[in-house]
This record gives sequence, C-alpha cells and structure tokens, in this order.
Amino acid sequence: MAIEWSSSGLDLHVDWDAGRRGQRLADAIRNAVRDGRLAAGTRMPSTRALAADLGVARGTVTRAYTELSAEGYLRGRQGAPTVVAVLPVLSMPATTTAPAPAGRPEADWRWSMMPGRPDLSLFPRAAWLAATRRALANASAADLNYGDPQGHPALRVALAEYLGRVRGVVTTPDQIVVCGGYSQALGMLATVLRAAGGRSVAFENPSLRRFRQVVIDAGLDTVGVPVDEHGIQVDELAELAGHCAVVVTPAHQFPLGATLHPHRRAALVELARTTGTLVIEDDYDGEFRFDRQPVGALQAMAPDQVVYAGTASKTLAPGLRLSWLVLPQRLVEPVRAARGGDRHNSVIEQLVMAELLTSGVYDQHVRRCRTHYRRRRDRLVDRITELGGELAAAGIAAGLQVVVLLGDRTTEAEVLARAVRRSLLVMGLGATWMDTPERPRPGGIIVGYAAPPEHAFGPALRVLAEVLGGPPADIR
Amino acid sequence: MAIEWSSSGLDLHVDWDAGRRGQRLADAIRNAVRDGRLAAGTRMPSTRALAADLGVARGTVTRAYTELSAEGYLRGRQGAPTVVAVLPVLSMPATTTAPAPAGRPEADWRWSMMPGRPDLSLFPRAAWLAATRRALANASAADLNYGDPQGHPALRVALAEYLGRVRGVVTTPDQIVVCGGYSQALGMLATVLRAAGGRSVAFENPSLRRFRQVVIDAGLDTVGVPVDEHGIQVDELAELAGHCAVVVTPAHQFPLGATLHPHRRAALVELARTTGTLVIEDDYDGEFRFDRQPVGALQAMAPDQVVYAGTASKTLAPGLRLSWLVLPQRLVEPVRAARGGDRHNSVIEQLVMAELLTSGVYDQHVRRCRTHYRRRRDRLVDRITELGGELAAAGIAAGLQVVVLLGDRTTEAEVLARAVRRSLLVMGLGATWMDTPERPRPGGIIVGYAAPPEHAFGPALRVLAEVLGGPPADIR
Repeated sequence: MAIEWSSSGLDLHVDWDAGRRGQRLADAIRNAVRDGRLAAGTRMPSTRALAADLGVARGTVTRAYTELSAEGYLRGRQGAPTVVAVLPVLSMPATTTAPAPAGRPEADWRWSMMPGRPDLSLFPRAAWLAATRRALANASAADLNYGDPQGHPALRVALAEYLGRVRGVVTTPDQIVVCGGYSQALGMLATVLRAAGGRSVAFENPSLRRFRQVVIDAGLDTVGVPVDEHGIQVDELAELAGHCAVVVTPAHQFPLGATLHPHRRAALVELARTTGTLVIEDDYDGEFRFDRQPVGALQAMAPDQVVYAGTASKTLAPGLRLSWLVLPQRLVEPVRAARGGDRHNSVIEQLVMAELLTSGVYDQHVRRCRTHYRRRRDRLVDRITELGGELAAAGIAAGLQVVVLLGDRTTEAEVLARAVRRSLLVMGLGATWMDTPERPRPGGIIVGYAAPPEHAFGPALRVLAEVLGGPPADIR
Repeated sequence: MAIEWSSSGLDLHVDWDAGRRGQRLADAIRNAVRDGRLAAGTRMPSTRALAADLGVARGTVTRAYTELSAEGYLRGRQGAPTVVAVLPVLSMPATTTAPAPAGRPEADWRWSMMPGRPDLSLFPRAAWLAATRRALANASAADLNYGDPQGHPALRVALAEYLGRVRGVVTTPDQIVVCGGYSQALGMLATVLRAAGGRSVAFENPSLRRFRQVVIDAGLDTVGVPVDEHGIQVDELAELAGHCAVVVTPAHQFPLGATLHPHRRAALVELARTTGTLVIEDDYDGEFRFDRQPVGALQAMAPDQVVYAGTASKTLAPGLRLSWLVLPQRLVEPVRAARGGDRHNSVIEQLVMAELLTSGVYDQHVRRCRTHYRRRRDRLVDRITELGGELAAAGIAAGLQVVVLLGDRTTEAEVLARAVRRSLLVMGLGATWMDTPERPRPGGIIVGYAAPPEHAFGPALRVLAEVLGGPPADIR
C-alpha cells in the first residue's frame, strides 16, 4: 500500500506490509526527496498527524524524521514545522523569451525599442482585477464549461459594439471569432484559404516577415506588392494573378507608416469585388491615431470582401494572447472549424475583456495610452530632427513605431551594429523586404517608441540618438 | 473628413465639405445607427462637446439630435444624456455550446450527468480572484510580453513541485509544457509522432472517441486494445505491431473505471522499454481517489518512456483551457515546435494558476472536491444497489463518473431513449467501443455524478433511477 496523508495528499508508494516500519518510512521519504517528488521547502506533516494517518506509533515517525534530518534530507527546529531540505532537485527552466532579431531574447537587451510592443508598465492592473471581480461575480456555472469555439457570446457582443463605434466596423456578434493572437488568426485564415484551393497570398512589400511565414507554414506561397507614401500600390496588385487574398495594414502601413489613400481604399475594395480577392485588414494599431485624418476600418466599405483583424496585444498586452476576427458570413463556419477543439481562449479572460469593453474602462485606457504615446512620438521626432543630416522619420501619424530613414550617410548594417554594441533592440528595415532589388534600398531603422517603460524612455532615446548619430569614436 | 470626438472616439465618415451641416450630421448618425456602428444604448456626446469637436454651432448639433430623436434613432430626456435607441441591429449569437451526445448542446438538457464534468458551482471564485490580485501584484512588466511557448517558468516550477508531491511524477520544470487543454496536448503529441514517421496509436478499447479523433486528425491510425477489470491487457498490446504509442488511463480507466494492476503497470513499462513504444498517461482525474490504493503516476516508473498528461478541467473548470504535459527530455523541443507561435496560454491565467498551486489553495480545493464527490459517489452507488435487478455500478473507486452495467434486463438504447425523454444527459457505453463484436456487448450507461450543481444532484439522481428502473408506465 502507499503512504498518504490527507493534509498534503502525498503518495509515497512504500512497500508497507512487513516490519521495520520506521526504516521503511525513512527510505520512502528519502527516495521521494532524492528523485524530486518531495521538493525542497515542502512542509512535512506533523509527526502526530502522519502517525495517525499511517496508524503507527508517533515514535516511529519521529525516529524516521530524526534520521532524515541527520542525513540532511529534512530540516526541523524545535517548535517549527519540519520541511524538506534544499537539494539540487529542480533546475530552473529558461526564462521567458519573446521573438527578437539577432536571436537574442528580448529580455536580454538593456534597452528595447522593439516595434509593435506597448509600454507594458501601462497595463491597467487595478482595472483588470476589478473587471475580474465583476466577471467572476456575474459568470454562470455553465460559463465555466467547455465554451463556444467562436468565443464567448458576451465578448462578441461587446466587441461588435466597440468595433462599430470606434473603428467603424460593420458587424454582428456572430461574424466575430475570438482568437489567441493575430498569428493564430492569420494561420486559421490561411488554412481555410488553402483548403478552398488557394495558392498564394499577396503581402505589402515591405511587411513583417513573421506573418508571411505563418501563411507559408499553412502551405501557401506569398507574393509582394510595392508600397509608397499612399500605402499599397493597388494597380500593381491588379497586375498580379493567382493570389486568393491580400494582407494589408491600411490605417498605418507596417513598417513604412503610410495611411492608405482614400482613392486606393476605393480601388482596393473595387478590385476585391471584381476579382473575388479576399482582403485581410490587419488593424494592429488602429486605436492609436495622432492626427484627425479619417481612418475608419476598410472593412466598413465591403464587409463581404474584407476580413477585419484586431488585437489586444497593442492596447493591453501581448501576453494575453487575445485577438479577434470580423468575418464575411460565408467564412464564419470554415474558420470555426479550422479553430477546432484545441485553440479556445480562457473563458474567464474573455469575460474580463467583455467587462472592460462594456464598462468603458477599455476606452479610457486606450485614450490614456494614446496621449502617452503621442508625447513619446513627439519627443522622438524632435530628437531625429535635431540630429539632422539625412535622417528622416516616417509614418509618424499613428501607432507605436516610426521608421527612421538613414539616407546615404550611414548604412543600416552600421547602425544596427552600433545598436547591438549598446544593447539597444531595434529592427532593421532590411528584414522586412520581400525581395532583393538591383539597386540597394535606402537603409532604415524601425523604432518602437512605446516599448520602454516610462523611466527608461529618456535614456533609451539618448542611446538611440547616439546610435543614429554615430559619433566618430563610435564608428571606428 | 470624418466626424470624430475624443470622448468616444467615434468615426462617422461623413462627407463634410459642403453646407447643410445639420442635415449631413443627422444623415451620418442615422446611417451609423442603421448599420450597427452605433449600437443601441451607446451614450452620445453632449451637444456642446460634439459642437466643439466639429467646430460647428451648438444649434446645428441640437437640430440633428432633435430630428433623430423624432425619427426614433436617438433617445433623450431633459437633463439626461442622449443615447442611441434600441433598433433591431445586433442579432444575439448562439449561446455557448459544449460537446454532448445526441447533438444537443449540453446547456439544453434539463439534467446533466455528462461524464468528465466537474461540479462547476464548486469553482473557487474567491480564491481565483485573490490569486489574481497576488499574480498581478507580483508580475513584472516583462511577464506581460510575448511569453515562453513552453509555458511561464513560474507555473512550470509550481507544477513540478505539485505533480511530484501529489501524483508521484518525476520531473523538472523544463520537461513540462503548459497546454490549452488535453485535446490540444494530445494533438501536438500526435503531430510530433506523425512527423517522426509514426503510423498508428493504440488506445484502450473502450475509450473516449473524441480523443481518438484528435489522433486521426493528425494523420495517424488508431488501434484498440481490450480492457478488463485490471485495466488494459498489456499482453494483447504486445501482440500488436506498427503502433508508435499507446494512450492509457491507468489511475481510472475511462469508461470502465479499472485501476491498472501493479503487474500490468510493470509489464506495460517493460514493454515500452523493450519496444520503444511511447506511453501517454492520461491522468484526467488522478486527484480524485476514494480508496487508499496506491495510484501514483505510471510516469514515475519510466520517465523516459512515459508522457504524463494532466489537466485543470476536472479540478477547476474546462473553460480555463489549461492542462500540462510532462515529457521525456527528447520530446520537449519537438512539442515546443509543434505548439508553434499560435497556441500560448494567457500569461495572467498561468500566473494565477501558479499562485493557487504554491499557496496550497489548490490542494485545499481539490480536497474539498474529493470529499464532495465521494459523498455523491456513495449516494449514487446506494441508489443503484437499491434498484437491484442486474444493475451494477463499476469503476467506483475514483474519479467523477461510474459506469452502470445494465445486464440483460434492459438495453442501452432503451435506457438512453428514456433519458432523452426525461432530458437527462448521460453517455452510453456503446459510443466508446472501437469495434463491433459478433455477440452484442452488455449495455452500460456512463454517469458523470459530478456534473450537476449541488441543488440539482438529488433530483437528477431520482430521474436517473427512474430512467434505469424503467417503470412500466415509462417503457410503454
């Protein structure tokens, strides 16, 4: 039989039939400590409790504890509870790693200006906790059961209202699918397109490589469409053939930062209608607009032809793994199916998000962040202007990043090398191109000015300036 | 340009150049309400605020509001804020559905005795909230960034200690992968096995069809191994060829409820060692043991040959979508890769779970549930005994369900038909077999006695008794 005590549920699997119980008990505990089943610091039951549980004399347990303490497996002082001693049992695992260039974990950089990262020190912890309290108070028992693979209805209703009001998205709750981040959402769309016979997906060139890879992993090819100061060149897209969808960032092209021109918006929608091409609108930072230009969702112009993709990764935190798709009705079932049984979001987190949206707390938080980021944007742009030379900041009207175009004075490689030496994490524009042209393209650095916590923004900005300015001493 | 106001971030896209501004404003708001961008109940800005935002006379806005109120698009009373009126805009989506037999959503049944469901009314809401407070207070900003695909280190450390202490699992935190439910975990394992050239996976016969389907979806075949009162028949497994892994439920065979006999445990581990077969230990309800039989994890006997799979779906709630795998070192990287970038759990929920484990609150909760379920088990078994006849309850030593064997007096189909008429959700044993034998097998009903909330257990038990007893009036 096994030794077991109700106070800790420990189960030691000791051969317990024969005699010499004290000895066997000691052996069992020693082995448990040795192979890690009893971790260092684990509080042992009192000798009285264990003796009662095992139906043996208390002295038997006391002797075992004494022997093991002498051997260093247990620690006990008069009056204090006996605990398992520290032995080299559990090796700490590698710490959290986030995608970053140069293969170095993001956390290992002294300064991070990684594009697409919000200031995580702004995460509304108190509001999240309060919303959790309300969500738990209002949730029914049934809410805690296996949920709707499309996402909890309460969250979809809240998102439909929010996206309609703030982003001009035209949708009902049943066209919305709650997802575990934009990568997952894009992957599911790619799977659906592939299953429908799709062969390739068009992307803006330049664009983020990570998302193109998601589409490639789903078995599709990717093709690039050039981008200029008015966004994706729709006439170039029209020249292409064989693609079933195009992924665009109309509100704030990543990484160049252009807003899709109204004429281009109309042309893109028209092209989608006539060719049947599906437009996937990546509205990754649509909430963060610093001018008063109209930039409602493209989706509103053609809800049957445009998939809208939004996320909480920029407004709250990437660690939530919470995003949403607004789909043309015909795509809802296929995406539900692609989502399968293994990609549901936690229902409690969905209910918390619904609380934040319906209570207006989410709007307040986004407004606070918008002001915060606008101020940083201004400081960054001023700094670039001071540096002068051929440096120019582009894509400054919205979002969490700008691209600093370097001109011919210095190369991207030089600047990135200096950034690495200063342990400043930024992204090179070069990594976002889909092709290698004859003439080298102007170098650029994508600066995520939202990433540093407030106290580190000033210093990070100084390091960036030095890296961009590249004082001779530093170039040598 | 677009109308936009800072107080709500609304973006109306109204053609705003020409005159008749009051009229155009009214049109814009009317359209927004009509197509759902302005949802019912949305609070409109004050006429003063909107007028200021648009740089028009306040009277212009007032006229537009008055007109729209007259048309029923807005509702406003003296002194009260103007809100969008209720229009048939948002169609409520279908409510949460959970897998259930007879294709009927679980929530639609009057009485649920669905196997594998905990009593969701026991979910420790207060403890969860308190743990959330602690988790949010202790989390670093970096914790909220994109996390470790293997799961947050803090949770893996807590799981290693807990699983070692309570289930006898031999592991270090870096052999643990946090997953979004057992289906996801099994699916990733199947993907890894398939990529390594695996062709088929052996399952206990009977076993839950849903999980066999997960393996089939990953491109593998399944083969059945008979089960008797001592669990899976290892000698029959030894006869098989071509399978790369076997999925077993050693602590409490689903659905027959046997505990794998010590000799079988030894034989299975030995077979795995000699043939290289991977053993996947589904410890779905290992925490709920009602006798004092030793049932530590099989994994402890051969950590290099056995994958341990555990879940919070039975101890807390399925809606959390939280489970864990303990892997042989060689499988950690492949599973990490299969997990990819699109299946991370929410970091906040992971930190909350770590808090529950390290604080001992989780142990307390499991103990409370164990007592609760043992009492229900006793009541159910007593009732079956009272009914007498050929009815027999099996698999009663552990877990959240028993199987009621019907004998020859009544057929499974009859009982299930009566259950449907009474709106009682139970599972038929027939659905769990992997083959159709020559002679019909004895019918059985799998009763999940944990599923009903406390107030409904008594009534559900009465209905079950009637369904099983099948009074003449009911059979007619």
